[in-house]
Amino acid sequence: MKAELQALSEAGVQFVALTEMHARDFVARADQHDRDGSFPVENIEALKSSGVMGATVPRQLGGLGVESVHDYVVGIDRLGRGDGSTALAVNMHLFRTWFISRAWREATALGDEERAGHWERLLREIAAGRTVIAAILTEPGIDHLHLRTEAARVPGGWSLTGHKSFGTGSPAADLLGIVCRYRDDRGDWRFALAHVPTQSPGVEIKNNWDALGMRGSGSHDVVFMNCFVPESDFIDTGRWGEYNERYLAGNAVGTLGLVAVFLGIAEAAREIAVSFIRGRRRGEGSRAMAERFAIQHSVAEIEIDVAASRAMVDRTGSAMDAFFKAHPQGSLPMDELHELMKDFQCTKWFVTRKAIDIVDRALTLSGGAGYLTRHQLSRLYRDVRAGPFMQPFSPNEAFEYIGKVTLGIDPVIEL
Amino acid sequence: MKAELQALSEAGVQFVALTEMHARDFVARADQHDRDGSFPVENIEALKSSGVMGATVPRQLGGLGVESVHDYVVGIDRLGRGDGSTALAVNMHLFRTWFISRAWREATALGDEERAGHWERLLREIAAGRTVIAAILTEPGIDHLHLRTEAARVPGGWSLTGHKSFGTGSPAADLLGIVCRYRDDRGDWRFALAHVPTQSPGVEIKNNWDALGMRGSGSHDVVFMNCFVPESDFIDTGRWGEYNERYLAGNAVGTLGLVAVFLGIAEAAREIAVSFIRGRRRGEGSRAMAERFAIQHSVAEIEIDVAASRAMVDRTGSAMDAFFKAHPQGSLPMDELHELMKDFQCTKWFVTRKAIDIVDRALTLSGGAGYLTRHQLSRLYRDVRAGPFMQPFSPNEAFEYIGKVTLGIDPVIEL
Amino acid sequence: MKAELQALSEAGVQFVALTEMHARDFVARADQHDRDGSFPVENIEALKSSGVMGATVPRQLGGLGVESVHDYVVGIDRLGRGDGSTALAVNMHLFRTWFISRAWREATALGDEERAGHWERLLREIAAGRTVIAAILTEPGIDHLHLRTEAARVPGGWSLTGHKSFGTGSPAADLLGIVCRYRDDRGDWRFALAHVPTQSPGVEIKNNWDALGMRGSGSHDVVFMNCFVPESDFIDTGRWGEYNERYLAGNAVGTLGLVAVFLGIAEAAREIAVSFIRGRRRGEGSRAMAERFAIQHSVAEIEIDVAASRAMVDRTGSAMDAFFKAHPQGSLPMDELHELMKDFQCTKWFVTRKAIDIVDRALTLSGGAGYLTRHQLSRLYRDVRAGPFMQPFSPNEAFEYIGKVTLGIDPVIEL
Amino acid sequence: MKAELQALSEAGVQFVALTEMHARDFVARADQHDRDGSFPVENIEALKSSGVMGATVPRQLGGLGVESVHDYVVGIDRLGRGDGSTALAVNMHLFRTWFISRAWREATALGDEERAGHWERLLREIAAGRTVIAAILTEPGIDHLHLRTEAARVPGGWSLTGHKSFGTGSPAADLLGIVCRYRDDRGDWRFALAHVPTQSPGVEIKNNWDALGMRGSGSHDVVFMNCFVPESDFIDTGRWGEYNERYLAGNAVGTLGLVAVFLGIAEAAREIAVSFIRGRRRGEGSRAMAERFAIQHSVAEIEIDVAASRAMVDRTGSAMDAFFKAHPQGSLPMDELHELMKDFQCTKWFVTRKAIDIVDRALTLSGGAGYLTRHQLSRLYRDVRAGPFMQPFSPNEAFEYIGKVTLGIDPVIEL
Repeated sequence: MKAELQALSEAGVQFVALTEMHARDFVARADQHDRDGSFPVENIEALKSSGVMGATVPRQLGGLGVESVHDYVVGIDRLGRGDGSTALAVNMHLFRTWFISRAWREATALGDEERAGHWERLLREIAAGRTVIAAILTEPGIDHLHLRTEAARVPGGWSLTGHKSFGTGSPAADLLGIVCRYRDDRGDWRFALAHVPTQSPGVEIKNNWDALGMRGSGSHDVVFMNCFVPESDFIDTGRWGEYNERYLAGNAVGTLGLVAVFLGIAEAAREIAVSFIRGRRRGEGSRAMAERFAIQHSVAEIEIDVAASRAMVDRTGSAMDAFFKAHPQGSLPMDELHELMKDFQCTKWFVTRKAIDIVDRALTLSGGAGYLTRHQLSRLYRDVRAGPFMQPFSPNEAFEYIGKVTLGIDPVIEL
Repeated sequence: MKAELQALSEAGVQFVALTEMHARDFVARADQHDRDGSFPVENIEALKSSGVMGATVPRQLGGLGVESVHDYVVGIDRLGRGDGSTALAVNMHLFRTWFISRAWREATALGDEERAGHWERLLREIAAGRTVIAAILTEPGIDHLHLRTEAARVPGGWSLTGHKSFGTGSPAADLLGIVCRYRDDRGDWRFALAHVPTQSPGVEIKNNWDALGMRGSGSHDVVFMNCFVPESDFIDTGRWGEYNERYLAGNAVGTLGLVAVFLGIAEAAREIAVSFIRGRRRGEGSRAMAERFAIQHSVAEIEIDVAASRAMVDRTGSAMDAFFKAHPQGSLPMDELHELMKDFQCTKWFVTRKAIDIVDRALTLSGGAGYLTRHQLSRLYRDVRAGPFMQPFSPNEAFEYIGKVTLGIDPVIEL
Repeated sequence: MKAELQALSEAGVQFVALTEMHARDFVARADQHDRDGSFPVENIEALKSSGVMGATVPRQLGGLGVESVHDYVVGIDRLGRGDGSTALAVNMHLFRTWFISRAWREATALGDEERAGHWERLLREIAAGRTVIAAILTEPGIDHLHLRTEAARVPGGWSLTGHKSFGTGSPAADLLGIVCRYRDDRGDWRFALAHVPTQSPGVEIKNNWDALGMRGSGSHDVVFMNCFVPESDFIDTGRWGEYNERYLAGNAVGTLGLVAVFLGIAEAAREIAVSFIRGRRRGEGSRAMAERFAIQHSVAEIEIDVAASRAMVDRTGSAMDAFFKAHPQGSLPMDELHELMKDFQCTKWFVTRKAIDIVDRALTLSGGAGYLTRHQLSRLYRDVRAGPFMQPFSPNEAFEYIGKVTLGIDPVIEL
Repeated sequence: MKAELQALSEAGVQFVALTEMHARDFVARADQHDRDGSFPVENIEALKSSGVMGATVPRQLGGLGVESVHDYVVGIDRLGRGDGSTALAVNMHLFRTWFISRAWREATALGDEERAGHWERLLREIAAGRTVIAAILTEPGIDHLHLRTEAARVPGGWSLTGHKSFGTGSPAADLLGIVCRYRDDRGDWRFALAHVPTQSPGVEIKNNWDALGMRGSGSHDVVFMNCFVPESDFIDTGRWGEYNERYLAGNAVGTLGLVAVFLGIAEAAREIAVSFIRGRRRGEGSRAMAERFAIQHSVAEIEIDVAASRAMVDRTGSAMDAFFKAHPQGSLPMDELHELMKDFQCTKWFVTRKAIDIVDRALTLSGGAGYLTRHQLSRLYRDVRAGPFMQPFSPNEAFEYIGKVTLGIDPVIEL
């Protein structure tokens, strides 16, 4: 029995092995990128070369063929152990790719050759390492149901204008996956999902990410000014101001990946603490550090939190696989999606919170050493604190959402 | 997706359906048995009739054929929702039966017809509802590695003398599964497992169980005075004062069942609270109770704890299945057993603690009503508090054990 | 330095010494009253004889002259160590008496001889042990700002009709202090405080208190049916549906006393656990229980919670003394009252919650023994759970209240 | 009633007013010193000018005359609100000064003119702003009872050699207060306290402090190489490897000051969060942020933790004052000192832990904004994490110490 999360599918096992290899490499440079606030371009290049950036592309289109959400999330966990910033960026690419693969399978099954072809071309580019996506949702000071980035109809497509924040992975991105709003024929606001090449005129990636942690994630603001989006890259997703299928499904999968990053960080901190303790041998007149009960007690607290966090990610990942398997195509039932999202929100809150606690205890176990800048834990302590900010939902909203779904109340957060 | 635990095997699904049926019945009498401190004999009779008492007996011997620890534990969880006391007693029978079935399979595979026949006869009795086992380990004031109940060699077998406590299920038991010590030829203490018919001369079940909760569990003291045990019902299990395979394997499986009882109690309390809230409709000048955020917040806290507890039981149950599948017979590696036990101890501590928290919050949500004797929650609050006392390990020992295994230190608790 | 709370005034020191003496006596009978659900009449008689029931009556009127809220609360804490049920009942008498003494001082200072005389007569009766008050506020299913017990004007006074619950101390009461509502001349609802002799026609004390804990507190329902209240015993306190001075001041003081009961229970549990551990000496091959780190760790957790709880009660008690000293008579400023109530609500939530945790840990430290009915801890575990239900506010409301006052929002709870 | 801590003595009130003024000034530069890792020399200069650096010097020697530990700690709390790094450094100066003032009072009372004169000269220098002390205790990898910095006898005094870490305030120090060991005539190790001018040959302040937080505290390593200490500045304090009066008294007072720094940081974070929320007004289609219950709930959690932390510091400060008042001179009883230290350890663990929680919640309330480097909370989050590392004791030792004192066991930590 291995306590750590294990991939269940063959493709997953291959993917996870690759991510473990990369993680061992990334860890060596993580502190430097943290100090400089620089984006680890070389990590993304290495991930392209090994095929990890095409992990969720089907095999027949040149990818690794990871279909299981569970297994995809296990790989992200491994990357998180090596470098949280890189893992965040990779997640924003791989989860979008996962949905594109699903759209391709659906179009293929329905015989919609045009859409199938459209998605196939994109997926082959991704598998070949020529296209990296950054999915960007958040806007400053606004919740997800009331985004204001706007698309106006122009000949052949749309013109996009707005301001996004937390554009994780944008420095490496070739394509930005954006949620915006537009007015339908009756003048009502609706949501759409748009793919915008980073090189498009009117796209500006502000190089302004400077934060407490995750300093290498390149989570810059991104501004769109009259940016052209062709019709084929613009997809209606539902009524503005309301939950819709894509929002719930997309964020359940994508944000579970984010949660796995923080589990990976916590596991790294745990490993550092346990290794440190085991290395402190019996001295003159003193026991080995591992023989002190206070130390054993703190280690046990870490183990319990790690075990619980893993169990939740494991179970939620499997629940997502079961859900998508039960609904291979077509409309996803909203009530089941809310149940899935609720389950995931329990996992998200728990795991991101416990990850902070785990790193905190590892820091205590390190003695004063872990508080010094040169110690890896001093970075992990800052990186791990980003967890609860991942959307949806922040802690300020998560309890309301979970409670409302449980009690059968409309789960729109009252703002 | 169903959030509650689900059986994975066909036999498990059948078993769980039966336990759900029984649970709905048991709940009606649980408060009365609690008030009277009476053992629910009729529940055990019903469980014999339906075949539940033979759940872990192989199909070919007349049982339901539940081999999966995971699934067996899911059924215990369901019984726990109906009546914790009954569920505790059933667990002490079913987990012993599970190990006897495993011993029968092993003897059969090895061609050891004598032992296979011995176990087959017992298992057929169990499946027929003619034999109920109560496994009793604990002795007052002594830890499990230093038990003092003693067997002395007599012609044809052994003579057993000692004092056991927490004899859960003893009022319904036909056979008591007892751990004792004896001296080998060199005079060193060793452990043995003995099966003693309740009707044997020298067995006295004190009817003295009177506790805060689990009042219907019949957890009486049991005294043995020069009680004869034939050689065939006496099995050496290892050196006294040390962990051994049977202890670790037996208690991992058996105590996971106990933990599931408390998860079931917590789920029952959650259900009561949620139903209560949903039933409190909008009044004159006031909102429906479900619309109050403070209520939603507390409900969310419950949901998170329930979700985490289920995930841990789910994962640990599956880990046990994987372990026993990897070792279908023969010696069980001690290092893997300690890893398994450590994982389980994380689950045990977490789930029994969270179960208390869940019932506590349900009580708060009920307003003053839940504090009244006539309210089911006032029983659940007392029942659920038994969780951390289940052995091994109590909270006073669990952290030391978990810490030591993690740090690679000998995990014997220092007393 | 003594870690436990200490009275600061001379009268307080005398009062606390008496309560300590009584507590040592009460503890011997507490388990019996718990089993029987009987009200400890003999305890109240003893408290009358020693003068404790006149503790908050001024010296010149025959009482002990305890004016300090802080010190009065310290005495309640001591009673709580002996018998929580008795302490609850005494508190409902002493805090009302404290306010009557304050009203007497104010009337005297203002030269209002009629009211001064009215209060003086009552206070002398109380000091003489001839009058015991039970203050009863709560009504089933209604919050405190919307009580429905109603007074209708009749010649010479009022006619009272309604249903109260949690009438703690009612079996010993000669006078019931009741909050009701009535219509003023314009037909608007207003609150009033009425004193009703228990012997009045139309008063019925239902002997129906049967709860998880605090079983000796006599917290019966009390029904009023066309009960006459003379004008002199009927005092307007403000607009119905709104906070008023008397409500905030009265409940801050009175409920702080209730909180002290639970601190006393926690201290008793702590004392039991520490004594138990110190008594478990070194055995053959084992250390003394006190030498085990896991035990030391749990004890330390208890000490921290006890220390924090004492500090909060200490500081809030002193803050109340400072407040009433700054406002010896006349109108009490509502904004300061809300600040005082907010501070108190922090203390209430914290201390009643920590008291539960402390008893819980003491139970764990006791091993299985504390779970048995015959062990005092099994009662304390049930008694202490009443804490969070004390009004105002339950946990469901307290956070909203504290948050609103802090943020400068109208602190009426949204129901 | 003011909820924040208040000075009780006249000198304390004056001191606290000055520290509040300085705090308002310091906050403007704190972020810059944090970024640069520079020591705020100008803050220390301002504190000299205003007399704060002479706060614990008696009035007749030119100081502010703060004798109350409670009040001294309240002032440190205020400085902590402005800049934690500066407050830490000031504390290491003021608490040593407090003990020197006590030594001067004792010598004066005993008529020991030589020592009185010695201390008087030093205290006058301090009051005049010409001498700043940094008390440095810790050595890397060694607990306080087994320090290895060594003094060897040389003509006229001692020669000091060793390596100290966490030399907080050393960049501003004129005098270093050092604990070392030496051999007595029988060759047994004993502890001594030595005052060493920073300018002495052989003292080297390594400018190597580079940490997660408290980056302006100048907590450099300090190395002593054959450093001469005259006899008059070398004081025996007891047997090496054992607790002694000075250790317990000195660290109780000095470390309570440290704890107050973290309370101040937490209060600053709370203030930022509350102001932020109150400033977020009602928008189009949304409520004011303060009207959201989830926000009120989090704010209430902060308020409870702030209230409890203040109460503990308040009570422990007063307990220290009572202790030193009861023992104005001469030997301090070890058993009372351990009780005092135990009470303080409860306060230390609780407050430094809750301070972290408070800043964490403030960060959550800020939304993503607080995670950005430019936001003050991102500094406070790093600064506040230093709290649990303050010695004595770290969390790894505190529980053992508290438990042992409570259980009447020798409280030496087993290493």
